[in-house]
Order: sequence, then C-alpha cells, then structure tokens
Amino acid sequence: MRIVVTNCNTTQEMTEEIVRGARAAAGPGTTVTGLTPSWGPESAEGWLDSYLSAAAVIDLVRTYDSPYDAVVMAGFGEHGREGVRELVDVPVVDITEAAAHLACLLGRRYGVITTLERSCGQIEDSLELAGVGRNCAAVVGTGLGVLDLGDAARTEAAFLTAAERACAAGAEVLVLGCAGMTGLQRVVGEKLGLPVVDGVAAAVKLAESLVALGLTTSRAGSYAKPVPKRRVWGASPGRPPSP
Amino acid sequence: MRIVVTNCNTTQEMTEEIVRGARAAAGPGTTVTGLTPSWGPESAEGWLDSYLSAAAVIDLVRTYDSPYDAVVMAGFGEHGREGVRELVDVPVVDITEAAAHLACLLGRRYGVITTLERSCGQIEDSLELAGVGRNCAAVVGTGLGVLDLGDAARTEAAFLTAAERACAAGAEVLVLGCAGMTGLQRVVGEKLGLPVVDGVAAAVKLAESLVALGLTTSRAGSYAKPVPKRRVWGASPGRPPSP
Amino acid sequence: MRIVVTNCNTTQEMTEEIVRGARAAAGPGTTVTGLTPSWGPESAEGWLDSYLSAAAVIDLVRTYDSPYDAVVMAGFGEHGREGVRELVDVPVVDITEAAAHLACLLGRRYGVITTLERSCGQIEDSLELAGVGRNCAAVVGTGLGVLDLGDAARTEAAFLTAAERACAAGAEVLVLGCAGMTGLQRVVGEKLGLPVVDGVAAAVKLAESLVALGLTTSRAGSYAKPVPKRRVWGASPGRPPSP
Amino acid sequence: MRIVVTNCNTTQEMTEEIVRGARAAAGPGTTVTGLTPSWGPESAEGWLDSYLSAAAVIDLVRTYDSPYDAVVMAGFGEHGREGVRELVDVPVVDITEAAAHLACLLGRRYGVITTLERSCGQIEDSLELAGVGRNCAAVVGTGLGVLDLGDAARTEAAFLTAAERACAAGAEVLVLGCAGMTGLQRVVGEKLGLPVVDGVAAAVKLAESLVALGLTTSRAGSYAKPVPKRRVWGASPGRPPSP
Amino acid sequence: MRIVVTNCNTTQEMTEEIVRGARAAAGPGTTVTGLTPSWGPESAEGWLDSYLSAAAVIDLVRTYDSPYDAVVMAGFGEHGREGVRELVDVPVVDITEAAAHLACLLGRRYGVITTLERSCGQIEDSLELAGVGRNCAAVVGTGLGVLDLGDAARTEAAFLTAAERACAAGAEVLVLGCAGMTGLQRVVGEKLGLPVVDGVAAAVKLAESLVALGLTTSRAGSYAKPVPKRRVWGASPGRPPSP
Amino acid sequence: MRIVVTNCNTTQEMTEEIVRGARAAAGPGTTVTGLTPSWGPESAEGWLDSYLSAAAVIDLVRTYDSPYDAVVMAGFGEHGREGVRELVDVPVVDITEAAAHLACLLGRRYGVITTLERSCGQIEDSLELAGVGRNCAAVVGTGLGVLDLGDAARTEAAFLTAAERACAAGAEVLVLGCAGMTGLQRVVGEKLGLPVVDGVAAAVKLAESLVALGLTTSRAGSYAKPVPKRRVWGASPGRPPSP
Repeated sequence: MRIVVTNCNTTQEMTEEIVRGARAAAGPGTTVTGLTPSWGPESAEGWLDSYLSAAAVIDLVRTYDSPYDAVVMAGFGEHGREGVRELVDVPVVDITEAAAHLACLLGRRYGVITTLERSCGQIEDSLELAGVGRNCAAVVGTGLGVLDLGDAARTEAAFLTAAERACAAGAEVLVLGCAGMTGLQRVVGEKLGLPVVDGVAAAVKLAESLVALGLTTSRAGSYAKPVPKRRVWGASPGRPPSP
Repeated sequence: MRIVVTNCNTTQEMTEEIVRGARAAAGPGTTVTGLTPSWGPESAEGWLDSYLSAAAVIDLVRTYDSPYDAVVMAGFGEHGREGVRELVDVPVVDITEAAAHLACLLGRRYGVITTLERSCGQIEDSLELAGVGRNCAAVVGTGLGVLDLGDAARTEAAFLTAAERACAAGAEVLVLGCAGMTGLQRVVGEKLGLPVVDGVAAAVKLAESLVALGLTTSRAGSYAKPVPKRRVWGASPGRPPSP
Repeated sequence: MRIVVTNCNTTQEMTEEIVRGARAAAGPGTTVTGLTPSWGPESAEGWLDSYLSAAAVIDLVRTYDSPYDAVVMAGFGEHGREGVRELVDVPVVDITEAAAHLACLLGRRYGVITTLERSCGQIEDSLELAGVGRNCAAVVGTGLGVLDLGDAARTEAAFLTAAERACAAGAEVLVLGCAGMTGLQRVVGEKLGLPVVDGVAAAVKLAESLVALGLTTSRAGSYAKPVPKRRVWGASPGRPPSP
Repeated sequence: MRIVVTNCNTTQEMTEEIVRGARAAAGPGTTVTGLTPSWGPESAEGWLDSYLSAAAVIDLVRTYDSPYDAVVMAGFGEHGREGVRELVDVPVVDITEAAAHLACLLGRRYGVITTLERSCGQIEDSLELAGVGRNCAAVVGTGLGVLDLGDAARTEAAFLTAAERACAAGAEVLVLGCAGMTGLQRVVGEKLGLPVVDGVAAAVKLAESLVALGLTTSRAGSYAKPVPKRRVWGASPGRPPSP
Repeated sequence: MRIVVTNCNTTQEMTEEIVRGARAAAGPGTTVTGLTPSWGPESAEGWLDSYLSAAAVIDLVRTYDSPYDAVVMAGFGEHGREGVRELVDVPVVDITEAAAHLACLLGRRYGVITTLERSCGQIEDSLELAGVGRNCAAVVGTGLGVLDLGDAARTEAAFLTAAERACAAGAEVLVLGCAGMTGLQRVVGEKLGLPVVDGVAAAVKLAESLVALGLTTSRAGSYAKPVPKRRVWGASPGRPPSP
Repeated sequence: MRIVVTNCNTTQEMTEEIVRGARAAAGPGTTVTGLTPSWGPESAEGWLDSYLSAAAVIDLVRTYDSPYDAVVMAGFGEHGREGVRELVDVPVVDITEAAAHLACLLGRRYGVITTLERSCGQIEDSLELAGVGRNCAAVVGTGLGVLDLGDAARTEAAFLTAAERACAAGAEVLVLGCAGMTGLQRVVGEKLGLPVVDGVAAAVKLAESLVALGLTTSRAGSYAKPVPKRRVWGASPGRPPSP
C-alpha cells in the first residue's frame, strides 16, 4: 500500500520528520512518500497560513503524478481536506480528525495540546466540522511557536503544563496538536500516565484501514469531483514579499 | 495480534458469521477468536435485550482467560463498551462507534440503516455518547427483525429503501447497522454508488490500529479499574422463563 | 397506590435506607415496597457495575409477581430504565432523571454532587439522554466512595466543598447524586441556603403523579414490549470470583 | 395544600375550564383557586399577547393577598414564569414545562400539538429555556385559533392530523399545547394509542410534589427577590384601543 | 430616516443618555427620537422587571403615533422584541442582539460584561434565542446595580475585572451589557486593547442598514400581525404599591 | 468611506455585477472598489475551488496597496475571511455571515437558497462557524450551476422551488446564497411575500456600520497579525492544466 503524506508547509525538514513518524506507524506492506509543497508558508500558524497552505497542498496533490492508495494530510488544524477529497479517488485522512477519532476510543473525553494559543480556535473548528468535537474537553496552547520547539526541556515543560490544564478540563486522553514530535508523545504519556495520540500515526493507520476495506470518499453530495473549469494556481512571478 | 470478538447474543451461528466478517477484514498477522455469551438474549432487539446482553458480554470477557490484544464488541447499538473498557487492559472497540468513525472520513454526513425501527433510538444514543453523532444525518429502520433477514430479496429491497431515505436526509455514506451482512454491504453500495461501512470490519481495523500504535484505554477518570467488591453474575437456577 | 422501589445493588441495608426515604416522600395512600436484586454488585460504582446492575434489576422486576402501580429505580446514574420501561405496563421513574426534572423547576441551572469522580461522566450521560442535561451546570464528585459515607463529618465537609464548586459553575439548585442521604440533604441545603433535591423522593412524587393522571409509558417506538425469545438471565453456578 | 392557578388571559370562562382540569388532577387535600388577570389580552396568541399576559399575570399574583402554597401558570408557551418565581416564596410551575417534564418520562421523544402555527416557535423557545427541549421531536400547529376550538369535530380532526405529523417526526408521547381540553386529550390518546399529557394536570401534580417535599425556588442567582424600586403596573385610563 | 429608540424603563435621564449614544452613532440623515414608557419599572433588573418592561414598551410603541422608519429597543437583555416585531411594519432591532451581531464580525468569540450577576442568565437566553449565542464565550456580571454606576472609578474597576474574566473565558471582543456608557466603552477598550461594542450604537447602525436596504420583519410565521381582539394595557388606578 | 469588495473568482464580469450591487447598497459617502483575483478559479463551486479562492483572495488583498476602510468578501460560502482578518487592520465582512446577521433580525428562522446542492454543506459550515447557524432552518440548492444562471425564467423557477422548500422547513426570511442577483431577490420576495436578503448588500451595510463606529477586528487571540515568515504565493510558471 502506498501512502502519500503531505506536509502543510514548505519546510523540507518538517516533511522528513513527519515521514519518519508515518513510517514508524505504517504496517509492513505500506510505503510512505512525503510530499512538500513547492509554495505556501514555511510553517502554518493561523488562518492566513492555513488557507495558503490548503491551496498549496491541493496544488501539490493535483500535480503529483505517481500512483498511490491514500493521502495523509499532515497539518494539525490546517484547512484543505475537503478539497483533496474532491480531487482524488483514494481515501484522504487529515491528522487532526484522525487523532480525535482514535482518542474517542480511549477515553470519555480527550484534550488537545498544541503550540501557539492562536491555533486553538482553528483546531476546535476543524474537530467540530469533522464531527468529533463533542468529546473534546479542551484545546490548550503552550505559547510556543513551531520554531521554539528546538529547546527540548522548555518544550517538554510547556507541554506538560498544557496537558495538566487539559486534564483539569476533563481530558482523559491527550492528542498532540502538532506533527513530528515522537519524543514528546512518550514523555507526556509517561509523566501523566495517559494515552497520548499522535495525529500522523493515527492518520496512517486510518488510511491503511480504509484502503484495506476497499473504502473511499463518497462522490454523492459534498465531495463530488471538481467541475472542469479554468483555474490558475498561484501568482505570476515578480510579486511583493510576504505580508 | 489476537483480537477477541464478542457476539452480543447467545446464537452461535451469529458469532460464526461475525467472525467470518472480522477475519475478512483482519490484517495478515491478526487472529480472530469469536466468543459467544453463555447467557443473555438469543438476539438483541431493544433496551431490555441490550442491557441483558451488556452484562452477559462483560461476564464473558471477565471469565475468558486466554491472552488477547484487543476486544471488538459486535452488537450494533448495544450497551456495554464502557464496562469492558474498565475491565480489560487492552483496547476495546464497539462496532457502532467504529463504523461511524470510518464513515466520518468518507463523507460530510453519514446515515445508518438498521433492522427494526425500535433500535433506531438506541443507535442514536450510542453514536451520540461515542462522540460521533454530529455528522449522522439519519438512522433508518427497515422494519425487519433479525430473524427476517433470511429472505435475501426482501432484505435487500428493504435495505435499499431505507438507504434511500437516509440519503434523502443528507447521508453521503452509509453504515450497516447490524452485524454479519457482507453481501448486503456490497449490494447496497453498488446499487446506490455509495461507500457502505460495516461495523465489524471497521472495528477490527481500529482495534488493529490501536494495538499497532501501543495505545490503550485511559485509566484516568471514567474508565478506571473496577473497584474490587462482591459481584454476582446472574441468577441462581430454577428461575422463571423469559418475560 | 403501590410503588415498587428497586435498589441497584445487592446490599439490603441500602434498600432499607432507600425505602425509608421513599416512604417519607410518599403521599398518604401510597405503599412502598423495596426490592433488592438477588445478584449484581454490592454497590454500583462505574460502568461495569452499572451494566451488571441494569441486568440484575430488570431480572428482579421481571420475576417479581405481586401487583404494583409504578416502579422507582433507585440507582443514581445507573443504567436500565429503558429496559424496565419495555418490560412493565406501569410508569417507571429513575431517580437520576426525577431529581433533575424537579430541579429544573427550582432554578435556572442545577448541579449534581455525587460520590466518586468516576461516576460524574455516567451521570452526565444519564441526564443528557433523559432530556434534562441542558440546564445542568456541573456534576461534581466528592472523592468519597459509597463505603466512605459512614464518617458523617467528613462526608458533610466533602459534599459542602463539592456543592460550592457546583455553585461556582452556575448551579442555583443542587441534586444529591446518591440514594439514602436525608441528613446530608438538610445540612447542605441549610448551610448553602439552596434547595437540595433528593432523587428518591423526587421519583416517588413523579411516579405518584403519573399514576394519578393515568399516564404510562408509550408503546410506540422505543419502548415497545420486548419481542418474545429465549433469554438466559445469568451464569450457571461455579463461576470465577469477581474481577 | 392551596394551589393558585393563573389564567394567562382575561376570559373568565377559560379560567373556569382550567380550574376544572386542575381540580380533576389535584390530590384529595388540594384546593385549587383560579385567578383571572384584570387586564391583558382576552386570549394569548403570539408574542405581543404573551408579553402583555406576562405582565398582567405577574401583577395579578403580586396583588393577590390570600395565602397559598404554589402557583400554576396556565398559559401554554406564554412568558412570565421566571418573573413569578422572583416574586413569590412558593413553587411556581408553568404548564408548558410541566407537560414536557412528564412527557420525558413516558417516551424517548415527545411532540406538542397546539392551536395556531404562529405559536409553535414560542413554545419551542419556552421548552428550550426550561431545559426540556432536547427530547421534543416536533411542535405542530393545527391552524385553529382559540376561538375555533368550539367546533368539536373539526377540532378533533385537526388535532389528530397534527398528532400524526408529530409522530412521523418521532414523537412517542404527545403534549396538548393548550389549556382546558380534557375531551381532546382522551380522544387523541385513544385513537392513536399514545399517552397524551395535559399541561394543567401535569403542573398541578408537579406543584403538589414540590410542596410535599418542602422545595421551593432558589434565591441564589437568577430568581433572587426583585430589588425594591418604583414600578407602575399599567397605563393610566383613557388610552387608545387595542392595536 | 427616523429612528425611534425605546428605553426599557421609566427613567427619563436614562432615555436622554441613550439618545445621546444613539445620535452619536447615527448617520447624517438619521433623526433619533427617544421614548420613555409611561409605566413599568424605573430600572430593569431581573425577569419580573423585564416582563413588566416588555409590556410597557409594547404599549409605548403601540400608542406612539408619529411616523418612523425603525425601532431600536434599548434594554440590554430585556424581553419584548418579538412583540414589537409583530406590532409594527418597520424593522425592530434590540440592542442585545445588535451588539452580538457586530461582535461576531470582530473576533471568534465575544464576551458580555454587565451590571448585576442576576442579569447574566437573562442575557444568555436573549442571545441564544436571537441566534447568536454560539460564539458568546461568557456573560460576566460586575456586581454593580444600575444605581451604583454613578461612582466612575469603582464602575471602571469593576468592569475591567469583569472584562478580564470574559477574556480568560475566551472572549476576543467585548460587549457592554448595559445602555448609556460611552465613557466606559472607551476606557475598557483602551486598557485591554480590545474592540468594545455598545448595543445602542450597534442597533442604530443595524436599523439604518435594514431601512436602507428596504428590509423589514417577515410576516410569515412567527411575527404575523397580532390578531385583533380585546386587550387591556394595565391595571386600573388605586393599586397596591410595588412588590 | 472606501470599501474594497473582493470577488472570489477570476471572472471580471462577476466582479462588475457584484460592484453594481454593492454600490446600490452603499451610503452616500461610500466608494466601492471591486477587486478581481489574478489567479484562482473562474467560479467557485465546492471545497477545492473555495480553498484555491481563499488563497487567491488573501493574496489579492495582500498586494493591493491603495488605502481603504473596510473589506467585503463576496464569495457566498467561500473560505478565507479569518485569513483576511489577520492580514488587514480594517473590518472584514464576508457576505455569507452578513446576510445571516441581517436575516436573524427579520424573522425567527431564515433559509438560504443557493446554486448547486454541493455547496449547501459548505454554506452550513460557514454559517455555523460564523456563529449564526442556530436560526438557519435550511440551506437548499437549486441544481443550477453558476453558468446556468443566464436563463432567467429557468433560474427564477428553480429559486422559487428552492425557496418553497426552505419555507416548508421553517424559514421566515430568505437569503440569496450567491452574489450578483438583484433581480432574483425582488422576484422571489414579491412572489413569496417574504424579505429576501442579498449578501453583498448586507455586507456593505455592516462594513459601513463597523467603520462608522470605529470598530475593527480584535487582535487578541484568533486574529492576531500573521507571524512574519517566508511565504510563497503560488506555483511557478509552466504548470499542468486544471484538474
């Protein structure tokens, strides 16, 4: 089985980190290919980045021409999954929803711990529309940006604090609201004695499951094939720099 | 990986049918063992049967002493999953919630088609508490009891009618709200051109996923270990016959 | 009018305590008979106990052959009420929902204070499905198990603390989330100056009300009579001891 | 026990009809006194009437100086209950919420059948704020105004049609959404084989229940005593005629 | 364009303050006329006052016979808007809903800060029924009554404290839950660096918008014209004093 | 006041149509400038188009360097508003939410009538997240694509049929779920006797209102300024054609 994993930003190192996580989770017969958008934000933090990322990732999938059996979209809380579902004929699993689906099976309420507070609302919206918001007790930010995650001790302390707040709000299971943090998952889980779900791993298993069962996106209603029409994927060169 | 699948009723043939479905869905390294309760209802239709079934299935798992890695509970809309989660240290997946989790990934709204109308409310409650009720467009009964399912043509016609009602209510994906009906899944899917999710297959894949990721039920809060105490599992002999 | 009150566990002393409370609430023409299950848990704490209790209580009612006019089910947050509704032709009132119904009439939001935190989720689910969850501001545990309730001073202090947390969450009325605690009801009410509703008393009054008005459970839809079939109510002798 | 029943309009015959229903439901030791507002609308249909009625009924209770133990407010879907709760020290039960509370005990979903369609929204709002809207499957109008209810055959036919629509929407129990229609209750119930709850009767039983248990409105938060201040209850004489 | 602004109480100074705020917000071609009810409460705090106010304001509008193009109802959290909508043929905007509508455009969640805690529930209900409750993070009281607002320093401190609680609950925009406090709006906004919406100003702009677009209340369904009938607007003279 | 109106697609004629509608709604001192994205889809139908459009519109606003006081985003049900809110310091109003905000003021429930059925879910999501989904009775498609709207008689008939379905679901006010259809608004309104809200007009008035009141997007929490970083807005030349 061939799973394509799309990073939500243009940072190649992040793609590699995500692919490592995906491969660790993948079953024996599964190959994982990481794809990095050729345009978009270098990291996705906030709605502007998320919408830019969504278009870039759709464009990435649209122009990727090797065969594959499923798409995993690795941007926690980022937009775009419905668009990719319209586009391709294979199952599409977003890591946000994937983590929540598995978390629901492990406790009565789950919580998400993520990087910046500004992302919390976006994640809540993503879970709600995916249909798994009901049992989410809290989405808690750590105050750390993606670039701050380099300092392991500080990151660990910040995630533990956020995790405790999620538990105080009723979470019995935790979801790591960012990609590529295997070490963090283990530390938080061990210190708090709770299951911690990583979205990339969860999405890989759900994608494998759908493929194994021969299931793919419904074409009835929402996710019908895009109507053929003229679409231009991005600006012409010589544009002003970032906002 | 060893998955134990519990039937919700005492009918051995049903267990065998469920096990066939589970094995068809299981990955190469997975063994499936079907367990039939030694007491309880011969089929579960309605709340009385469901509660009787829940206790019998918990008792069944409690007294099963071979090792296993996950439990799949094969009673669509039946009670008991939280109790089994308290009891065992491995992941527990109920087929009702499992089907809904996968269905959410395949369309914006899903619908459930089931046997008797009297079961619809129970299924709605089960989905709601599992945290996946939001994107359920409808739960529709066929008017057929479990015993009526023998007549294939009539069953197929009734399920197609119910499926159309679910679609009219907005369903883009269907869930088969009963166990052991592989043929029906294919017929409905082909005739309506929609993905159809079978709960047993879905639960097997989710159980495999959780085991592969090393995830199991949280002990924090709701699903703590049962407090040791005196419990008597059923009536003494010489009791009155069924209601 | 003859009301049968079912204890949710096998402890005879608890039945007697509940019957005392029920009789104190009952009108002049009402007789109260307490029934203790012959099997099930000795106290109900958590889902496993609750499902075991549900089956045992249904079996208890099923095999009780004296005439009566209504059933009160005295297990706060415990399962089973829908099953008993299917079974009998007279009104069935569960103490969880009963307390909430009356509490809704006494303030804009109510709170529930109960024993172990692990029961809070189960109570929330029970209120939600009964249709009275909306105005519940909080369900708060005291950390005390049923067996810890013997120490009156400690119990009182723990319930007062929990009650204050419920009030901070917006509760204007309190519900005592356990059976047989008349003294506690008075103490909490007086110290906090709030109405405190006891579920057993509330259920007795609601049962009397339904009987007086000639109302009983609808047979249309959910609570139709159980379909006749083979049902076995419990394990054969010589079983392994409790989990 | 002395229950005061307030009509929501100035029509004395309606008060008498309501009192008859209330007395039929009242227990042996209960006396029922009907109160008719000295001002307000002659019948309450729509929000304008409802707010006028609310002020008139509050004024009525405010100036009634005989002792009583509970207030039943007999205006289905009409406003005012929270204001009366602030005003008096005894329990206050509105017939809208009362009918819904009992209906929730009799089936998984209930439906309301009422007079004009324009009242349906008001009733839905009233049920929602009372905390019992969740299990309401539908509120259905008959197209008949209060004055049209004189033609018994037409009324019966219209209510049966509305009841069938409520059942098609999932109602298993019916609530009569208007006061003073004992005959209708029996006819609808018998023809459809469903329990039918009358709000006046339900409210009398709930009021009796609260009084018997020594429970009354919480003064904490929402329903604190009105702050003493200057209030003028209505216009000076010589005003323009009705809208 | 002629906007009529109705005060919810009989205090003329409050009307003048509200009119000043309305005029400051009104566009160049808009004239604002303040109307003070001739009866009702001198300030509206709690449900009893609110229902009395609703009837008095409806009566005020009913008997006001100069032409106008829209009605703004200036009682934060007070009842009556649906009744005025039935009555008049021009748009009706209540300041509670108006503030929330604009606040929704300025942030993902808004919070309301108001006077007495007892008003919070009423405001929550008003927002919910207006259809804009979803994105309300909190309604927080200051503990100050309307009469306490004279002490500017104390008022400012109390509102800042309440605003911080609203922000802690997730509010990104604030709504001032009382009329006539322009200074407060500026102070809170500057100190906290947040947009602060005043209901009177918001309602004036929304009323102007509806009039400019030629839109007015639908007569289909809920807000049909009141049925002609006998209505008496208030008590005869020689009544007992306030509660 | 200078309002910039962004079309969601690259079709210049559509921009002109939208600008005509915006100017018709704008107040005397308001100038309207229409902006057409230089890339993106030629019409937006479905999620793929919507995400592509969102990025293109954000890019459009980002690179537009004339001064303006507010942004109106004219894509019904399209994504992007939160991203533009992060980007600019002036108020941003999306026509979807704008229409709903005004519709809420005109009736108890509103309905949306739109082009293709596939857009209905997207519109529902947009309304829900904007906080105005509660009072939406239905979103109904006409089966017509944007290109089919040229045939006036067929379009009118299709929209009337859809409008009747919305009314049957409880809508008392209608929202036109597409831009640039002034004639349709009048026809539907007159034939059905209901207020019909056009999103472009509504958004212009709301934008004018916010500007007049000196209100703009909160920077606290969700809509903070985008973090400076490297972002690439679109693909390099020589790309494959549309999907």
